[in-house]
Amino acid sequence: MVTVRNQQSLRAHNRINILNLIRERGRISRVDISTQFAIDKKTVSNIIDSLIKESLVTSAGFKESTAGRRQELLTINGAHSNYIGIDLGATHIIGILTDLNAQLLDKVYYEIRPGLPVELIINQMKTILSKLVKSEKATASIESIGICVPGFINPRSGVSIISENIPGWQDVNLKEIFQRETNKPIYLEDSSRTLGLAEKWLGQGKNQKNFIVLDLGYGIGMAIFIDGKLYTGHSYKSGEIGHTIVRVDGEQCVCGNRGCLETVASGKAIAKEALRAIKEKKSEILHGLTHGKAESVTAQDVSIAASMGDNFSIELLKTAGRYVGVALANAVNILNPSSVIIGGGLIKSGNILIDSMVENLKKNTMMGIIDDLQIHISQLDTVGSALGSALLALQHVFEFDISSVV
Amino acid sequence: MVTVRNQQSLRAHNRINILNLIRERGRISRVDISTQFAIDKKTVSNIIDSLIKESLVTSAGFKESTAGRRQELLTINGAHSNYIGIDLGATHIIGILTDLNAQLLDKVYYEIRPGLPVELIINQMKTILSKLVKSEKATASIESIGICVPGFINPRSGVSIISENIPGWQDVNLKEIFQRETNKPIYLEDSSRTLGLAEKWLGQGKNQKNFIVLDLGYGIGMAIFIDGKLYTGHSYKSGEIGHTIVRVDGEQCVCGNRGCLETVASGKAIAKEALRAIKEKKSEILHGLTHGKAESVTAQDVSIAASMGDNFSIELLKTAGRYVGVALANAVNILNPSSVIIGGGLIKSGNILIDSMVENLKKNTMMGIIDDLQIHISQLDTVGSALGSALLALQHVFEFDISSVV
Repeated sequence: MVTVRNQQSLRAHNRINILNLIRERGRISRVDISTQFAIDKKTVSNIIDSLIKESLVTSAGFKESTAGRRQELLTINGAHSNYIGIDLGATHIIGILTDLNAQLLDKVYYEIRPGLPVELIINQMKTILSKLVKSEKATASIESIGICVPGFINPRSGVSIISENIPGWQDVNLKEIFQRETNKPIYLEDSSRTLGLAEKWLGQGKNQKNFIVLDLGYGIGMAIFIDGKLYTGHSYKSGEIGHTIVRVDGEQCVCGNRGCLETVASGKAIAKEALRAIKEKKSEILHGLTHGKAESVTAQDVSIAASMGDNFSIELLKTAGRYVGVALANAVNILNPSSVIIGGGLIKSGNILIDSMVENLKKNTMMGIIDDLQIHISQLDTVGSALGSALLALQHVFEFDISSVV
Repeated sequence: MVTVRNQQSLRAHNRINILNLIRERGRISRVDISTQFAIDKKTVSNIIDSLIKESLVTSAGFKESTAGRRQELLTINGAHSNYIGIDLGATHIIGILTDLNAQLLDKVYYEIRPGLPVELIINQMKTILSKLVKSEKATASIESIGICVPGFINPRSGVSIISENIPGWQDVNLKEIFQRETNKPIYLEDSSRTLGLAEKWLGQGKNQKNFIVLDLGYGIGMAIFIDGKLYTGHSYKSGEIGHTIVRVDGEQCVCGNRGCLETVASGKAIAKEALRAIKEKKSEILHGLTHGKAESVTAQDVSIAASMGDNFSIELLKTAGRYVGVALANAVNILNPSSVIIGGGLIKSGNILIDSMVENLKKNTMMGIIDDLQIHISQLDTVGSALGSALLALQHVFEFDISSVV
């Protein structure tokens, strides 16, 4: 609860509310801001003047009012500052450069093979970072850097505690490493949560309060929004839908348990099944696609084989979709969200997986709950988690300064 | 966000904060209230004086301060007003009378057999209500009445939309029926959520922010607390853990889906399995316990048979506990709560079920998450949901009057 005690904190309070309203609306006039918050026009104008002086806000043309008088529109000044977002996954590192509006300015993409030593991964991240720091597409100085890694993290210490799908990755102090490297503030978060942030700020989570974002990739995670805010749990470990049990007594999972969703439906599980099929000569097409290098087979290959009519691959994707649908239905039955946004690398695997997932989500959710649910496929492409990492950094500009508001 | 705009609303704000602090602490002095909120002693004393005048607060003796000067302790005056809580379940109706401190003053308990016609159920509720209204144990006039029913409800209209385990129960406007009957405000909520409220106000959920309460009975439900508040979902349908899928392609559930937790682990499912066992002559002990009336067998009989060494019953309870453990682990992996409080009628079924449930909860939750989780068994006995219903009514005394605070 925010209680405003004095004029100074009231001004800080109004300032940040106005800044966020401009961000959310894209373009808005002083009059409309004044109406929205029931604050007098003079106070609004004073605050806007100082935001323009800080170069946080800029003019964005005019709108005709009904009375015929032109009203200046205000917008966030993207060129105020730049930010870097880095997304480390089990099979990729993506780095992006954005402005304060989270507009993508530059992008570096590296594929990595699962099992790359920790030191080499960090070196790759440093290389990407230095490319972005030197980017010719920058429009302002880089203020801070957001990094995401799948798995448990400590947001205060900046330690990536464990990432089950990156072998050997444990207690890596990314904040320390990259603060030394760049001398800039470093923010750390789980990749599914940054994907969630990107959906909330820029995607299909805008204007939604209670919703979930599924991150379906080499591993499977989830971001939960409650009352408009990212819910991180009691000890920052919420959202582990990939380790919910969908097959009691099922296959052993990297986490130590049995029958987790990730053992039947992740990019990793699909690749594993595909490898088995090639070895057992159950799919000629997969065999052909991997040119005899069976070990290199990926979920993407399975998707291509399925589109070529390979029955084994079609069934594999259907089964994966089915279990994701069940796990999602379980989460939806518990949380009753307004929508589910499905994102992550695996959604590129095409309609067979997605159709099966959506069909089974609908089939296994309670009637009254599914009636109130919207299902969206993420439009953020592969850059979602990286974009969310940049947002993790730049969002501090839009937050209440705790010291000024009690 | 609560923003205080003027002196009048500031006073209302302080008044309700002080009232809640007294309630939470049980007994507290003016000086400690003043310290807690950093409000000057004169303002505190003014507010306390008016709370005493309203008879909401009363003196509760003195404490010696370090300086030797006695400080008067203040407490909520239970005798300010009385409340009724009614808990309608598939197999029982419980009505209770409490004071403003939620102290139990009187209790009426009716067993009902599953399948009783809706009209007769409502008549039974009316009979219980009139007994409590006339109770000689009342300490003040009855202000309002809280009612809970398992299933989807509409808190505004007061309609109990559907209760899967009460056959024929659909769109019952309990608010209208009982407002006509009593001329008092009626509040409606789902039974698992009122059990949750009771744990939050009076039980093991005190001082916890993010936790869940499992309601294990004839059906299975769950209350979710996020940031100290009951989370009800986008459309008031959250917490349906009983309809999460634990056996893909499992048995048909009343909800229409297959393999729901309720089909393998509820009081209803246990009774159904027991009936099958008696018919198939798989348990002599269960046969004996029901005196030839196999149809009347309950989960309680299974618990008794198990304690007598009946292998079928022991295995049945272990299996039920196992699936509850898995479903709970799934919810915990998603929500990462600080604790799980396990309540409801089935916990009377003894240690076999509970031990199996806790063992499987631990086994199927991710390591880092289970390490941070406390597991509690509810101490509220069978009266938990009814107590929560009374709280549903009396909590309005402790809430912000929205009209005075913008």
